[in-house]
Amino acid sequence: MSTKTKPIVMISADCHAGPPAETYREYLDPGVHTEYDAWLAGVEEQRRQRQSLFEKKFFDDFESDEKGLRGAWDPEQRVRELEGDGTVAEVIYPDSIVAGGVPFGAGIGMNSKPIDPKLTLAGARAHNRWLKDLCDAHPGRRAGIAAIPIDDIDIAVEEIHWAREALPQGGILLPAGTGELPLYFDPRYEPIWETCADLALPVSFHTGSGPPDYGNFPFSPMLYVAEGPWFAHRPLTFLMWSGVFERHPNLTVVMAEQGSAWVVPTLAGWDSSYQRPMFKHLIAGLPLKPSEYFARQVFVAASMLSPEECRIRHKIGVDKLMWGSDYPHPEGTWPNTKQKLHETFSDVPEAEARAMLGDTAAAVYRFDTAALAADAARVGPLPGEL
Amino acid sequence: MSTKTKPIVMISADCHAGPPAETYREYLDPGVHTEYDAWLAGVEEQRRQRQSLFEKKFFDDFESDEKGLRGAWDPEQRVRELEGDGTVAEVIYPDSIVAGGVPFGAGIGMNSKPIDPKLTLAGARAHNRWLKDLCDAHPGRRAGIAAIPIDDIDIAVEEIHWAREALPQGGILLPAGTGELPLYFDPRYEPIWETCADLALPVSFHTGSGPPDYGNFPFSPMLYVAEGPWFAHRPLTFLMWSGVFERHPNLTVVMAEQGSAWVVPTLAGWDSSYQRPMFKHLIAGLPLKPSEYFARQVFVAASMLSPEECRIRHKIGVDKLMWGSDYPHPEGTWPNTKQKLHETFSDVPEAEARAMLGDTAAAVYRFDTAALAADAARVGPLPGEL
Repeated sequence: MSTKTKPIVMISADCHAGPPAETYREYLDPGVHTEYDAWLAGVEEQRRQRQSLFEKKFFDDFESDEKGLRGAWDPEQRVRELEGDGTVAEVIYPDSIVAGGVPFGAGIGMNSKPIDPKLTLAGARAHNRWLKDLCDAHPGRRAGIAAIPIDDIDIAVEEIHWAREALPQGGILLPAGTGELPLYFDPRYEPIWETCADLALPVSFHTGSGPPDYGNFPFSPMLYVAEGPWFAHRPLTFLMWSGVFERHPNLTVVMAEQGSAWVVPTLAGWDSSYQRPMFKHLIAGLPLKPSEYFARQVFVAASMLSPEECRIRHKIGVDKLMWGSDYPHPEGTWPNTKQKLHETFSDVPEAEARAMLGDTAAAVYRFDTAALAADAARVGPLPGEL
Repeated sequence: MSTKTKPIVMISADCHAGPPAETYREYLDPGVHTEYDAWLAGVEEQRRQRQSLFEKKFFDDFESDEKGLRGAWDPEQRVRELEGDGTVAEVIYPDSIVAGGVPFGAGIGMNSKPIDPKLTLAGARAHNRWLKDLCDAHPGRRAGIAAIPIDDIDIAVEEIHWAREALPQGGILLPAGTGELPLYFDPRYEPIWETCADLALPVSFHTGSGPPDYGNFPFSPMLYVAEGPWFAHRPLTFLMWSGVFERHPNLTVVMAEQGSAWVVPTLAGWDSSYQRPMFKHLIAGLPLKPSEYFARQVFVAASMLSPEECRIRHKIGVDKLMWGSDYPHPEGTWPNTKQKLHETFSDVPEAEARAMLGDTAAAVYRFDTAALAADAARVGPLPGEL
């Protein structure tokens, strides 16, 4: 039987969720409620700053339409809107478009500014607990990415074990930028790699962490746009050369929402360095080339995969790319995903499209595609409809 | 008359010079001699560390051959060795392969570590004075790149005026990494851009500045290799988006020894951001696209231009690329320049080869190619010999 009549099981490998700031109160340890109240007071200001990142109109449009915003936290509306886009399952990172984000900034931008580690941990735990409730509302359809603070490695390992238990589909998010803490080549992080490899829990680095303070100039957001992706994939440099992939062949790493144009030239450059005789004594502990470790253990959650990125998919590795809608972020494809899919995937062979649009994410995040097939039959596009 | 019989005027746009550490004493302000003695004591240790960067054998080979090392500071030997490579003129950056480099680390790696600004200034001045003597030894054949400390902007402007007077051919070097100081989008640097534009003095950023401390792991040098070029061209991001090129259309910037593979994808990414409707309000002050400012005001001293880089020269801009031998650095082409030239330039049209191998550098650094023609007639390769 031809697979042409079998709808594609679409899984967005990059979505975001988070409730209105007040909602986190019930998930927070009572010990930090005083600091939480102070943080809430600052959320309005935070919202104003965030608007400067994009056209103010963007957020006005969103926030004037409660329905559109509501999907950021409401499980039912979320399912409806994702299904409207043809998507049956999703991978969920912190920080929706709702003002405030994870309490104390303990989401994607964790460690961007020096924060009391106690608060980072409390904020991340509150979000992770809330995320578990969101995922549990529709079992099998949401992979929750737990935010893991790295100030204390023993605590990080405990949180990772919690995440593995609490989130049947999922992974963890580590801050791409480590702020005042050592960079990721430091041996202090070894227990994290070891634990995630043992638990088969993928480690994500997502754009939005790492860049310095660019001030409040009109052009400041352009500096963030220019440098953000580099800071997001910087950890890969450290993991690669310090031998993390060599020591932990079962570790899986996902580079999320940072484009994929950097992959081919970066790996080519690293392979070239790897092969230079003058560096031979420095890479003695790495029997494989960087591109080989990448092929074995790294995935790219290439949100909003552009036609240009799709054209070089064989150079990156078709099986390395996972599409994402970035729902509900305004820079993502929602609610125009079908049109965007057409622009990027219309001439892609069916098997490759299925891999990039869902099958690879299913394997990475332990989704049961057989169980998702019924929902996909209702909403998923047919291969010929891309 | 055909130009085929006219030897190429070869100018290396990236060389390095510096004397044995002790030599700097006579060029240093006596007020810092105590600190200088302490610094000298650490040079041995510095040398040991530097060796870990490459195969130890590299430096042993060099340092056991006094002749080879001597060209780092001796004007006569320098001319002989450059001419042996077919080169008649050169652009000189600080930090040769001689142990120690510029006193107090005030050369290429300036600002990498927090240093008393008084010492940075004293070290840079000592080197610049020494450099002037080296350049004066063969008038018209050496463009000296003066190291300019940026701790105090008024002093930086004074030093820039000194450089313009002291070095008939030349430019200035700013540290690519600003350490604890503000990044280059900050308005505090405005007098530097203004002065260099007024004086038509090119501003260089050279690899070797900016990266953090990667520790003393066996793989640490690989992290430097992987990240160094990014840190070296990071200032271009800041100058571009903060409007420095727009405000100072006469400013010339040279990105030195950081490869050129980054140019095309970086500019493509920036142009793409520039054209996104959502960022329109952020780039209101920039009537030109980033690639247009680059074409107007930026050059790449693409040391050791590889065959791969040469193949994409039209995408980068043939008139933007300046070849360099990196003499006397062990990773450069000397003493095998002729062979390396053949690998890269053998199928390049004559006019393009002349531009990349010397004519563009002559225009940027005020070399008189007519005056250099006599020396080129003795040592320069014919176009057909490349």
